[in-house]
Amino acid sequence: MAAADPPPSPPVRFGILGCANIARKVSRAILLSPNSTIVAIGSRSAEKAAAFAKDNGFPESTKTYGSYDAVLEDPDVEAVYIPLPTSLHLHWAVLTAKKKKHILLDKPVALNVGELDEILAACEASGVQYMDATMWMHHPRTAEMKAFLSDEQRLGKLKAVHSIFSYNCGGAEFLKNDIRVKPDLDALGALGDTGWYCIRAILWACDYQLPKTVTALRDAEFNESGVILSCGASLLFPDGKLATFYCSFLSNLTMEISVLGENGFLRVHDFVIPFNENVGPFYTNSKTKFSELSIGIEPSPSECLVKTELPQEALMVKEFSSLVKKIKDGLGSEKKWGVISRKTQVVVDAVKASIEKGFEPVEVVYQ
Amino acid sequence: MAAADPPPSPPVRFGILGCANIARKVSRAILLSPNSTIVAIGSRSAEKAAAFAKDNGFPESTKTYGSYDAVLEDPDVEAVYIPLPTSLHLHWAVLTAKKKKHILLDKPVALNVGELDEILAACEASGVQYMDATMWMHHPRTAEMKAFLSDEQRLGKLKAVHSIFSYNCGGAEFLKNDIRVKPDLDALGALGDTGWYCIRAILWACDYQLPKTVTALRDAEFNESGVILSCGASLLFPDGKLATFYCSFLSNLTMEISVLGENGFLRVHDFVIPFNENVGPFYTNSKTKFSELSIGIEPSPSECLVKTELPQEALMVKEFSSLVKKIKDGLGSEKKWGVISRKTQVVVDAVKASIEKGFEPVEVVYQ
Repeated sequence: MAAADPPPSPPVRFGILGCANIARKVSRAILLSPNSTIVAIGSRSAEKAAAFAKDNGFPESTKTYGSYDAVLEDPDVEAVYIPLPTSLHLHWAVLTAKKKKHILLDKPVALNVGELDEILAACEASGVQYMDATMWMHHPRTAEMKAFLSDEQRLGKLKAVHSIFSYNCGGAEFLKNDIRVKPDLDALGALGDTGWYCIRAILWACDYQLPKTVTALRDAEFNESGVILSCGASLLFPDGKLATFYCSFLSNLTMEISVLGENGFLRVHDFVIPFNENVGPFYTNSKTKFSELSIGIEPSPSECLVKTELPQEALMVKEFSSLVKKIKDGLGSEKKWGVISRKTQVVVDAVKASIEKGFEPVEVVYQ
Repeated sequence: MAAADPPPSPPVRFGILGCANIARKVSRAILLSPNSTIVAIGSRSAEKAAAFAKDNGFPESTKTYGSYDAVLEDPDVEAVYIPLPTSLHLHWAVLTAKKKKHILLDKPVALNVGELDEILAACEASGVQYMDATMWMHHPRTAEMKAFLSDEQRLGKLKAVHSIFSYNCGGAEFLKNDIRVKPDLDALGALGDTGWYCIRAILWACDYQLPKTVTALRDAEFNESGVILSCGASLLFPDGKLATFYCSFLSNLTMEISVLGENGFLRVHDFVIPFNENVGPFYTNSKTKFSELSIGIEPSPSECLVKTELPQEALMVKEFSSLVKKIKDGLGSEKKWGVISRKTQVVVDAVKASIEKGFEPVEVVYQ
């Protein structure tokens, strides 16, 4: 280190609520990120928490608790990662904020925008940072794709977006009993779990403009308990842009975004989780014309490869932790992540409402 | 040639109606195909016909006429390629059939299914072969993709299809004055020109099962004359399969099909016209799972490259000409191309009806 460099800041100290499978990946990310560490984990079983900490290489000093409350009471914990089932988010996120801990909240963030508003209000009242754990937002590829989409020459006016996120890793047992399809745990089903990403992708592509109308596609599929297993929707934007998505627990793992503009086209096939941790590809065409006699096209499509040293989930933690540091430095919290979360939730709610209204269009109201 | 080989059949003798730009490509295909040749072309101007024949390397013996009627009266003409504006199809295709000439009819084949039924009835009455000029159907890639889609292991139950075909080659002048957007010439606009391919792709993927409901996506775009410049629709099938498409004259050239099944996924990015004339790629994933810690997937996607010696449009002409030969051999006509055309037109009509009904669902009736 050069003599003039400031001393490094101490890492942001995370506590984790629960031993969800996804917490293994995010724990690794917290430990990979240069400005964060793990100091506590709580589970309903202290033994389970201890085993989780050991199995996932947590620091030896990590405290393992037999309750979530104990994590929130621990004065050493500055920030909390919450990977609990969605129906528990309202209670635990609000409590976390009240305890003045910063919140990295897994998605779907809430069962509806009313719940999310309570969470965001609690964060605001306590002055803590809020971010949802939508990892792909933080891959450097996402910024490079956005640069393409924002380029008047290369993409031009955006006309249409389509996104798919589906996976099929369960079979009958999953579709009946997994947390993600239990009405008392994750009542939004595939819409909350996979549709969240599609909706976020559409809003991201549209510079977070909200659609004016959302119409669910006929038909959706449900399990015995009425939880959504697959659905889709079309979104109409004020300027005439049109977006569609399809999300599912019943189809092969697929993670696509296609964005069509007046002058160009962008597609990405692994937007949620890159096939390769260190490099994210995307594909573009611009000002494409049929060649002479219409027996081909000009110019050829381009592949763009975006490398990253840290996986996207570690970049997410790094960004979150740097925002926490800003608050500690007296610079206040970053509001944009709450705004983006809320817009995503508003559209999730509108899709659900449209399904419940028999696939009628729903006006999107953003207050 | 080995002594035992039968003598080669004489080539099917084509006449061409008009000097449309697309006729250049199809003329080349007729001359490339081993079982066909061109013997006549008619235009409203004999000079134009003669210049077209010369510019496109037609055989020296080709007769050039100053009317379409003269082509149909020519006893040397066995088959007619009709690339006229859609509003002229009914008149000229029915007349062609009445003159006992086989018909290769460009798409969209008619303004509505009632017109197409008149054309098909005329072909049936005269015992002539009918085929629409949807070239990609004849690329060997199409059969290989179909093999993937039909494979219970690799794709499984088909769940969703999405297709896009758009191009943007005109600007204001095109959008106002091109044949493809003139209400008296091609009243179906982008729906007939580019939507035709998307709808065909969806029906092809679904084994030509018809949807039970078609709902146009809000909103469509129109030119001053009310001709569609961009639109989309969702199609619901009796077994719950869901398809969406987007077609446009207002966006960059894009030609996509995505097919999602329980066990797999297929995508192709140049389905209408392969980027490369000699090889058509497509991409598949099967039984894809997240890898340990969900930091990637297994197995990796596959690229499949399908080579073709003849371009797809020459394979189309070759197939058509072989069906003509079967009729000449007393084996009767092949009905499937009429059936496929008609189903495509039925869905085109349903999308148009849904747009006209304010984007309400339209039941598909197939009689």
